[in-house]
Amino acid sequence: MPKVYAVIMAGGAGTRFWPASRSSRPKQLLPLAGESEETLLAATVRRLAPLVTEDRVVVVTGEHLADATAKAVPGVPRSQILCEPAPRNTAPCIAWATATIARLDPDALVAVLPSDHFIADEEEFRRVLARALRSAESGRVTTVGIVPTRPETGYGYIELGEPIEGDTGAKRVARFVEKPDRATAEQFLAGKRHLWNAGMFFFRARDMAELVVRHLPELSSGVAKIDAAAGGANAAEVLKAVFPTLPSVSIDHGVMEKAEGLAVVPGEFGWNDVGSWQSAWELGAPDEAGNSLSAGAVAIDSKNNLVRTLGKGKKVVALVGVNDLVVVETEDALLVIPRERAQDVRLIVDALKAAGRTDVL
Amino acid sequence: MPKVYAVIMAGGAGTRFWPASRSSRPKQLLPLAGESEETLLAATVRRLAPLVTEDRVVVVTGEHLADATAKAVPGVPRSQILCEPAPRNTAPCIAWATATIARLDPDALVAVLPSDHFIADEEEFRRVLARALRSAESGRVTTVGIVPTRPETGYGYIELGEPIEGDTGAKRVARFVEKPDRATAEQFLAGKRHLWNAGMFFFRARDMAELVVRHLPELSSGVAKIDAAAGGANAAEVLKAVFPTLPSVSIDHGVMEKAEGLAVVPGEFGWNDVGSWQSAWELGAPDEAGNSLSAGAVAIDSKNNLVRTLGKGKKVVALVGVNDLVVVETEDALLVIPRERAQDVRLIVDALKAAGRTDVL
Repeated sequence: MPKVYAVIMAGGAGTRFWPASRSSRPKQLLPLAGESEETLLAATVRRLAPLVTEDRVVVVTGEHLADATAKAVPGVPRSQILCEPAPRNTAPCIAWATATIARLDPDALVAVLPSDHFIADEEEFRRVLARALRSAESGRVTTVGIVPTRPETGYGYIELGEPIEGDTGAKRVARFVEKPDRATAEQFLAGKRHLWNAGMFFFRARDMAELVVRHLPELSSGVAKIDAAAGGANAAEVLKAVFPTLPSVSIDHGVMEKAEGLAVVPGEFGWNDVGSWQSAWELGAPDEAGNSLSAGAVAIDSKNNLVRTLGKGKKVVALVGVNDLVVVETEDALLVIPRERAQDVRLIVDALKAAGRTDVL
Repeated sequence: MPKVYAVIMAGGAGTRFWPASRSSRPKQLLPLAGESEETLLAATVRRLAPLVTEDRVVVVTGEHLADATAKAVPGVPRSQILCEPAPRNTAPCIAWATATIARLDPDALVAVLPSDHFIADEEEFRRVLARALRSAESGRVTTVGIVPTRPETGYGYIELGEPIEGDTGAKRVARFVEKPDRATAEQFLAGKRHLWNAGMFFFRARDMAELVVRHLPELSSGVAKIDAAAGGANAAEVLKAVFPTLPSVSIDHGVMEKAEGLAVVPGEFGWNDVGSWQSAWELGAPDEAGNSLSAGAVAIDSKNNLVRTLGKGKKVVALVGVNDLVVVETEDALLVIPRERAQDVRLIVDALKAAGRTDVL
């Protein structure tokens, strides 16, 4: 088998975990999976081994996150932490990282993965990845789709096509489907022919390069310029000049939805996109009363609450007679919101932005 | 008129304002009246002027609160801050303070006042006090009773008797009534013959001394020993030896309920006993949405909440979609409780005590 590299997309800003998440400390750099102190990014890198070792991991992030990202994954060579001068969505990110890997190893197999998801069954995850990589090895760009467990309207779906010969369990991708309405999502769940698109892609480096040339020629030539300068004296200068001019487009819209012969491997490994404090509560191993509490928190006559104290001097947090709340405390901020409104954290972020309180954003 | 002295009872422990109140920082040392940073004790002393000036104020507190109390009322002579070696309820407190004042000025008039209440109309308060003092000057031990505004079951009541001749508005005290049940409290409110007992007493020093001799002779002789030693080399020693042996009894039970010829002056001056966070919310000048917020707090879709940030590094507090909550944050603790359960703060204090967390009590 060719060598396998991983591209971890870690450029997310993420305001849904305010006040824990900040522009300088986005979701992937937070320990949001239960009791563990491990950041989501560190967990993403760790669980790839032994399939992909740290020396073959490429992390793509934003310039302002370079140091924090390097600190979170100390085993990843610093030269493999690529820093985008400006956010340009996923297609430039993946094209650039793929070009970088192809330069190191033209025959490389590449796994592209988000940096900010949670996976409960890591062994099964690696088994599915191994199948997806074998599928990719045969020249098909392959994705892993998550077997739905609820009629979710917040995700895109992948419609399954005909099975593909071989032992990878892969099927053809019939089509990508935008976020559905509730009724459609329920049909998808019942029909068992649709999977969640979790943003995981597997390919030979040269296959992706060809797809980018064909579907996003502008991106391809821009990345070629950046890659040609890489390692040279003017690498930073070229990157800074060219990257912000690349077309800002997602890999889904820009490449996947136009490509043919794609494969998808279904995955069932306790995937969670850690989309809000609600997810953090689900992952937080709630106690008998349904409370997921930080150490030092006391809950009396209180059910189904999430309490997170992230400040340095850990506080005693006391809840009396409150249910279904999210209470998150940091050094400089405190949030109280019902769990079911967890998505509305953005309202606070917007209000603070409008009030010029960038110091706490 | 004889000189007027005030005895401020400031020995309260008070757990109902946890986490703001601590054993080392009880209620009277907290700024609980609205936006002001003034402690309840400081407000108590301030609003007596010009009726009673600071140099004639005696504050009785506990030994462990000596420095904090002195700091809260810097205008009160340090020699007039009396520190009880052990809490022995109000009768020993008042008897000792009265003996101390009588030594300075045998003809003194004394006003005994709690240190931890709020009064909205301070001018009217002083007018009522002046009437009560004139009543006391004639040799009647006098109290001020608060005209009830609701059928409160948490206070003792004073039943009004016949009017007393003169222009003080005083009436005889028919009797003291223990905390009533709801139906009785409603009768009291409708009948207009009962006032709330707010623990304010007015008397000539020698009248109180006589009452104590008659009704609590043991207390009288103990206080005489302490007073005889006062100012001498062994004052502290005698205080420490004798005070803890004094009978622990309230002035109401020990003296007032047994005394004859008591007078009461009705008071209507926006009195509030600041009994819980609920009271703090009422006094906190809630905004249009009913929220009383600390500076830097943001409330979205949220009504009738109290937010107090008492830590040094004032936090941004964000509420989204929550109603009728009390949120109080200090350097080392955070409380979230519905307003209507504010009295249940003691449950937390009990739980923390049981868990050995005296560091936050």
